[in-house]
Amino acid sequence: MSDYKASLQDMNFVLHEVFDVATDWQNMPALQDMMDKDTASAILEEAAKVAEGLVAPNARAADEQGVSYADKKVTTPDGYKEAYRQLAEGGWVGVTANPDFGGMGLPKVLSAQYEEMLCAADISFSLYPGLTAGAIMTLDLHGSDELKDIYLPRLAAGEWTGTMCLTEPHAGTDLGIIRTKAEPAADGSFELTGTKIFITGGEHDLTDNIVHLVLAKLPDAPAGTRGISLFVVPKFLVNEDGSLGERNPVSAGSVEHKMGIHGSATCVMNFDAAKGWLVGEPHRGLAAMFTMMNYERLGVGIQGLGAAVRSYGTALDYAIDRRQGRGAKATRDENASADSLMVHGDIRRMLLTMKAFIEGGRAFSSYVGQQLDRSKYAADENQREDAERLVMLLTPVAKAFMTDTGLEATIHGQQVLGGHGYVREWGQEQWVRDCRIAQIYEGTNGIQALDLLGRKVVGTRGELLKPLLADIAAILENVGAGWELEAGQLKQASAELQRVTGEILHKVGEDENLVNSLAVEYLHLVGYVSYAYLWLRMGLAAQAADSSDNFYSAKVKTARFYFAKLLPRIDGLIGALDTGSAPLFEHNVEDF
Amino acid sequence: MSDYKASLQDMNFVLHEVFDVATDWQNMPALQDMMDKDTASAILEEAAKVAEGLVAPNARAADEQGVSYADKKVTTPDGYKEAYRQLAEGGWVGVTANPDFGGMGLPKVLSAQYEEMLCAADISFSLYPGLTAGAIMTLDLHGSDELKDIYLPRLAAGEWTGTMCLTEPHAGTDLGIIRTKAEPAADGSFELTGTKIFITGGEHDLTDNIVHLVLAKLPDAPAGTRGISLFVVPKFLVNEDGSLGERNPVSAGSVEHKMGIHGSATCVMNFDAAKGWLVGEPHRGLAAMFTMMNYERLGVGIQGLGAAVRSYGTALDYAIDRRQGRGAKATRDENASADSLMVHGDIRRMLLTMKAFIEGGRAFSSYVGQQLDRSKYAADENQREDAERLVMLLTPVAKAFMTDTGLEATIHGQQVLGGHGYVREWGQEQWVRDCRIAQIYEGTNGIQALDLLGRKVVGTRGELLKPLLADIAAILENVGAGWELEAGQLKQASAELQRVTGEILHKVGEDENLVNSLAVEYLHLVGYVSYAYLWLRMGLAAQAADSSDNFYSAKVKTARFYFAKLLPRIDGLIGALDTGSAPLFEHNVEDF
Repeated sequence: MSDYKASLQDMNFVLHEVFDVATDWQNMPALQDMMDKDTASAILEEAAKVAEGLVAPNARAADEQGVSYADKKVTTPDGYKEAYRQLAEGGWVGVTANPDFGGMGLPKVLSAQYEEMLCAADISFSLYPGLTAGAIMTLDLHGSDELKDIYLPRLAAGEWTGTMCLTEPHAGTDLGIIRTKAEPAADGSFELTGTKIFITGGEHDLTDNIVHLVLAKLPDAPAGTRGISLFVVPKFLVNEDGSLGERNPVSAGSVEHKMGIHGSATCVMNFDAAKGWLVGEPHRGLAAMFTMMNYERLGVGIQGLGAAVRSYGTALDYAIDRRQGRGAKATRDENASADSLMVHGDIRRMLLTMKAFIEGGRAFSSYVGQQLDRSKYAADENQREDAERLVMLLTPVAKAFMTDTGLEATIHGQQVLGGHGYVREWGQEQWVRDCRIAQIYEGTNGIQALDLLGRKVVGTRGELLKPLLADIAAILENVGAGWELEAGQLKQASAELQRVTGEILHKVGEDENLVNSLAVEYLHLVGYVSYAYLWLRMGLAAQAADSSDNFYSAKVKTARFYFAKLLPRIDGLIGALDTGSAPLFEHNVEDF
Repeated sequence: MSDYKASLQDMNFVLHEVFDVATDWQNMPALQDMMDKDTASAILEEAAKVAEGLVAPNARAADEQGVSYADKKVTTPDGYKEAYRQLAEGGWVGVTANPDFGGMGLPKVLSAQYEEMLCAADISFSLYPGLTAGAIMTLDLHGSDELKDIYLPRLAAGEWTGTMCLTEPHAGTDLGIIRTKAEPAADGSFELTGTKIFITGGEHDLTDNIVHLVLAKLPDAPAGTRGISLFVVPKFLVNEDGSLGERNPVSAGSVEHKMGIHGSATCVMNFDAAKGWLVGEPHRGLAAMFTMMNYERLGVGIQGLGAAVRSYGTALDYAIDRRQGRGAKATRDENASADSLMVHGDIRRMLLTMKAFIEGGRAFSSYVGQQLDRSKYAADENQREDAERLVMLLTPVAKAFMTDTGLEATIHGQQVLGGHGYVREWGQEQWVRDCRIAQIYEGTNGIQALDLLGRKVVGTRGELLKPLLADIAAILENVGAGWELEAGQLKQASAELQRVTGEILHKVGEDENLVNSLAVEYLHLVGYVSYAYLWLRMGLAAQAADSSDNFYSAKVKTARFYFAKLLPRIDGLIGALDTGSAPLFEHNVEDF
């Protein structure tokens, strides 16, 4: 396995030369004194040191060792505890947390780069601070001042970690049918009873306390998703002076044995009249949880990116070093009995597919991150609203498309190594296994697609697509010489997306199964079109830059590769979209 | 995990109603007294009992336990030894072996069904008899009578197993650079010295002896692939009376820790002047090995099919039982708080994609199996030659396309279970891991694609495509009412395949990188077109059959699904094929 090296040059290119985020920051009152280009670069350099030197070295051994469980206690792999301590001390757990409570308050477009680094270093490890960041945001947005004062400083400092407790044995995607109960106690708190499964970081040995955010039902709760409330349930109760008090009866019943992310403790959590406090309004817990989940979903998309980045590093090193077979005459090394794998077209196809998805994904997560920041910080209300709409549209795409392309990339990265890619010691198969969960958790990719096509597109009669289409139209106005082919492809792809959307909107009233039948192909179509838009932007930005730097000419070549080899996949998606729902609903259950 | 149930009805449909193999057998002198429809059905029923009852129950525990290595000895998982003993006693190791040496001599089209069952039951376990069958064939075709008499009866009876020792640490795909040496000894034997890696079943505890087929270089060998010879090297030397003699100095140095197929012993084998005997002519070993590999490659393709079959069984059972969310009004169960997953279009999309690849793959392996039988047994020389050409064309497609679609299928089968699909106890993630190796070994799928486009298509100036195109044209002549749409799609797809092939043939003389750049997309194009041909044949055969049986109406529906939702993917492949090699060769190595 190759050592991890963060893609700092590309991150800076995306941030400043493609998206010009420093100009955004100058116009944002909350950020203008805090963030500029130099500060951002310095933060990324420090983050890279943490990811490369502190986190990445543990990943392979942690996969072999995994977490262990005994007597309701979970032990994390060797090195995790010390790495987490150093991460917390450096302030890297609270990077996105509110500065009022000790966080760094970094803009999302910047923290997205840091998250990529952590995921590339070790997805399992990244989940502990990742879930904590989600818990911080939820409490910050929905918790009372009292709850914030108790929990946020400790969470932001990395002294305690956070979890999200949603899933139950019979209720995963469908949270409306959860059974965990919250009974009011005399002191204004609640007693929670029930079982939650698949709880990431539900129990571990990294910190003294764990703060669970738990969905449960109050006694008077209406049925379904409108009867779910959110509670904060700490592992140890907190005394008035801030010290840890008695043990709350919430504990891990077991850990799951999984395909991958072996270093992440995935726990069954039993709540036995555990003491909790309501976060936000009664029965409005799902909405509160979703505020965070939309933020987290970008983070899960970034896991797909991180896995691909790490796989690419090893695949490229291997392909350069490994000599096997002969290339075309012009590429042959006559002094050796075989040529580097880099002479073979199919090896290049796999590596360039990875590279195009990685750099396209980095641009995509940064694009969504920039819109998240604008929706929160922009001075102009119209800009905030446009950004908010883009975020709503693109969040499910980020989660699903970045993880689907991430899995494809890690499979290519394994294939480049041949049999060595299948052997554990090389590490390439780990990124496949670790990436695979990102397509499943935080709402499966099928659910993301339903959210995109059902809620976001059909639910707004296509209105939410408009800011994306406007961004595409704007770039097409500014295409210079030499990009006619790619601009024509993007224009055509955008027109097809609009045509397909129009036909779905036309038919959806008479076909209740249309959305659930076409959602995944539709999401992939939006993904490929969005990446095409970003690749054209990147190609133009690179061409406008200093051409003596190899980085820029390579970027132009990869842009052209994307349009030549990957964008054509939308033709297959469109073919499937055009045949509607009928081919999926002809079969009776006994026909399967 | 659901119990494995072999798809006997579908196998019989494919064999008799689609391919009418019994008529073939009647016209084949070698088979006419031995095989008929009833005999074939009886064999498949017995095979199903073996796969379902003897082999499948070990798979999950074998994955957890894996093989273990100590002191040059390998221990297989609990249950393997007894299962192998019973398999051998039932005559199931020698199903394809020459009856002159105690084999069953089954036609390939029938043994392909048995292989599917074994792979669906447990891919790891299937490799021990699978490699043995390959060794039997190689010795039968290329060995001297003396070698055959010594080895074939014991191998066919399952008393000993066989291996193929090709790969070395520095030489995988590129066998021309192997270093294992064979020095002639005074008694006509040879002493082999070298290290082989990734040797499946190189050492184990299932049988008393192991027969290695080893590629090595004679002292006077020319460089490259024309200087490789084939040797048989037994673990224990065989005395004149057939009893086992002294231990040959060939031993396992370690076993690999792998992503999957944990029950299969993948060994590093050290040859320390081990005694061996030449098989076939000096320096012609690679050709001899390839005779077998072409046969084996269909077997590896069938591993992809078997993994998909097993994954589908559990995914379907889960989807029917699991209740989550609500379907369209017409499909809703008002007596429950949630509906079966089967009401959701995306779940159906995943299951039907699996089903279409599985049943299409079963038809494809049977089609290739039928051609293998015809090439060997047909009385008519023209039929033998046509069949031989189809086999040459389709073998790399069978290996690569059936495993690529197998991986996609197992990923869908995992996704259907959501988080439960990621947890090991459900078993769904195992089929993903087990299937993944089939894309890599026996020549990576990239190498299969090079073989198809380079050697088979460009190497014959497209001649080898003609029997396939003729079969497609023949079915298009016989399409009845109601299939106009699908027939039109197949006609168009066949025309596009010919156009793309013509353009490659036109350009290949000036572009040495064209083949290695386009091979994988080309192979997928041939795969999707071949499956479309088979789905149309199956659809027509099903429509012609007893329509009161639900099996046939389901088959028609799945055929239509394939044309509506999967065949359109070729449009994306064609788009990538049309852009040639340039987008892959613009990047300098430092641009990656």
